[in-house]
Amino acid sequence: MGPHPAVAAIRLAVRRVLTDILDDHGRAPGRAPHERPPSPLVLVACSGGADSMALASALAFEAPRLGVRAGGVTVDHGLQAGSDLRAAEVASRLRELGLDPVESAAVTVGRGGGPEAAARDARYAALDAAAERHGATAVLLGHTRDDQAETVLLGLARGSGIRSLSGMAAVSGADGRYRRPFLQLDRQTARKACMVQSLPVWDDPHNADPAYTRSRLRHEGLPALEKALGKGVVEALARTAQLSRDDADALDAWAGRAEAGVRDADGRLECAALHDLPPAVRRRVLRRAAIEAGAPAGSLFARHIEEVDRLITGWRGQGAINLPGRVVARRQGGRLVIRQG
Amino acid sequence: MGPHPAVAAIRLAVRRVLTDILDDHGRAPGRAPHERPPSPLVLVACSGGADSMALASALAFEAPRLGVRAGGVTVDHGLQAGSDLRAAEVASRLRELGLDPVESAAVTVGRGGGPEAAARDARYAALDAAAERHGATAVLLGHTRDDQAETVLLGLARGSGIRSLSGMAAVSGADGRYRRPFLQLDRQTARKACMVQSLPVWDDPHNADPAYTRSRLRHEGLPALEKALGKGVVEALARTAQLSRDDADALDAWAGRAEAGVRDADGRLECAALHDLPPAVRRRVLRRAAIEAGAPAGSLFARHIEEVDRLITGWRGQGAINLPGRVVARRQGGRLVIRQG
Repeated sequence: MGPHPAVAAIRLAVRRVLTDILDDHGRAPGRAPHERPPSPLVLVACSGGADSMALASALAFEAPRLGVRAGGVTVDHGLQAGSDLRAAEVASRLRELGLDPVESAAVTVGRGGGPEAAARDARYAALDAAAERHGATAVLLGHTRDDQAETVLLGLARGSGIRSLSGMAAVSGADGRYRRPFLQLDRQTARKACMVQSLPVWDDPHNADPAYTRSRLRHEGLPALEKALGKGVVEALARTAQLSRDDADALDAWAGRAEAGVRDADGRLECAALHDLPPAVRRRVLRRAAIEAGAPAGSLFARHIEEVDRLITGWRGQGAINLPGRVVARRQGGRLVIRQG
Repeated sequence: MGPHPAVAAIRLAVRRVLTDILDDHGRAPGRAPHERPPSPLVLVACSGGADSMALASALAFEAPRLGVRAGGVTVDHGLQAGSDLRAAEVASRLRELGLDPVESAAVTVGRGGGPEAAARDARYAALDAAAERHGATAVLLGHTRDDQAETVLLGLARGSGIRSLSGMAAVSGADGRYRRPFLQLDRQTARKACMVQSLPVWDDPHNADPAYTRSRLRHEGLPALEKALGKGVVEALARTAQLSRDDADALDAWAGRAEAGVRDADGRLECAALHDLPPAVRRRVLRRAAIEAGAPAGSLFARHIEEVDRLITGWRGQGAINLPGRVVARRQGGRLVIRQG
């Protein structure tokens, strides 16, 4: 008798990603084709919650069968009393699964960009450091299709275009270090897989705390949307993420090529040439130019770019446009000048 | 003392659109530049609800000031007892506003595509006929930013990509006949404008009927989303619509140009050339080819195109792919053949 369907599903998702990692690893630059690469190390980032515990269990099962070494990292954010003890407990569970090396990394969460962003920044810095320290080829993250749907809705609320609708990538980070095997798998399957494998899981109280936007979305926003639109909403949002990501990539590439064609010999942007571009491409060229001039990408909103765009498409002698990062855009004699000052 | 801010807002929105219509009208093909064009007729489509009553009142106010003739049409869908009497009442209110010509058009709603789609099809057919009959240059529709936000969420639930996120266009239909002056205006402003002008409005019971997806979205889905994500959600969704529309237009144009480059001398699609396109462009080329071969656009989902795409990107000898409309896609000797049969 084979494993429970939920366990089979999480294992299959991990096996696919490990196979990809082995393919990439075997093709690593500087290695001759006949040379046998050393066995790569893959780490799982585990909070002790159901999603990442399921991921850890699947990694522990699949890795030895594929000749991959498997370890784990749990991050102690130090935000709750006793978080160090809990991290130690998660680490010991990872060891019980047969993972090695396993470590618990304590971090100090700053305040930049709100509590969720600050915790995320600290977490990824710790995971990067652990990966470097152990020479890991990849770090697996337990984000599920439900997390992806929430991320798309959070991006939608920013109203800043399709890049912010594209959610989390299946492969991200330096050299594609981070992999998300469960991005097409629903949270329920991960929970079920823990249950049937008798894996104890820890529910982060933050996940149910209505002070957090994501938590409100998970417990109120998305269920209400499903009630109005039907059960397929999570899947539709995840699919939207993938399609939006591909679309945004293609348009970014177009804007990159177009940029060279709209600059004069001195590298200044020519308004007439900009005017001839499709609006979607022109706005991306303007955004790139503003960032290049020193505007911080995170503070540059669609409304800023729209205003700069009106220097091209709605020119009636208007003055300079102030952008974040003390960047100023103005039209001067048929040229668009964007610079700090 | 000027008008109430809500009244000023609806009038400004209508004045902008009337000015655009006059610009386009003055440039109509076949007319010499010095020839004075006849005064154009603009109709308002009015259900008697707050949005379209506000629109009718603003049109009645602005049109004579701009030398535009203004009329109105109300459609009797015949779906509720007494709908003919109500339509007659709306028509008489439009006449009281000074609109002329005014007509009530009775339609028979079919069953195609569900009750909302069938009513919409019947309504636009009646509006088209009225515009033709009266020689109208444009028909104004009362859709607000809130309607736009709902339309984006309905598109999101389909999970079929950014075209379905692009909502309603400010200008649509044959020769740009339909115009939506209130697409950037919130519903609350339209209601307020009716109130302060003492315009009686009619609340369509369908709008509050939870049997309708849009109604559930309006009364439960969107409020829950606002509660989770903050009050800016409606504006963010409307902005997403505009950005997605521009992006989808640019990518469609790219796919149109790319298609010529991936066909061989006999017009067959070359797999190697398709493979080199960005995924976002390739999938659009495949979609165009499937529709050209006879697949109905409305039944062709993202998952169909993904499966055809795997004949290019994940070729391992798989068989023919069946698409809606008895269209079949198969790979034959380096060519992709998509045809009915």
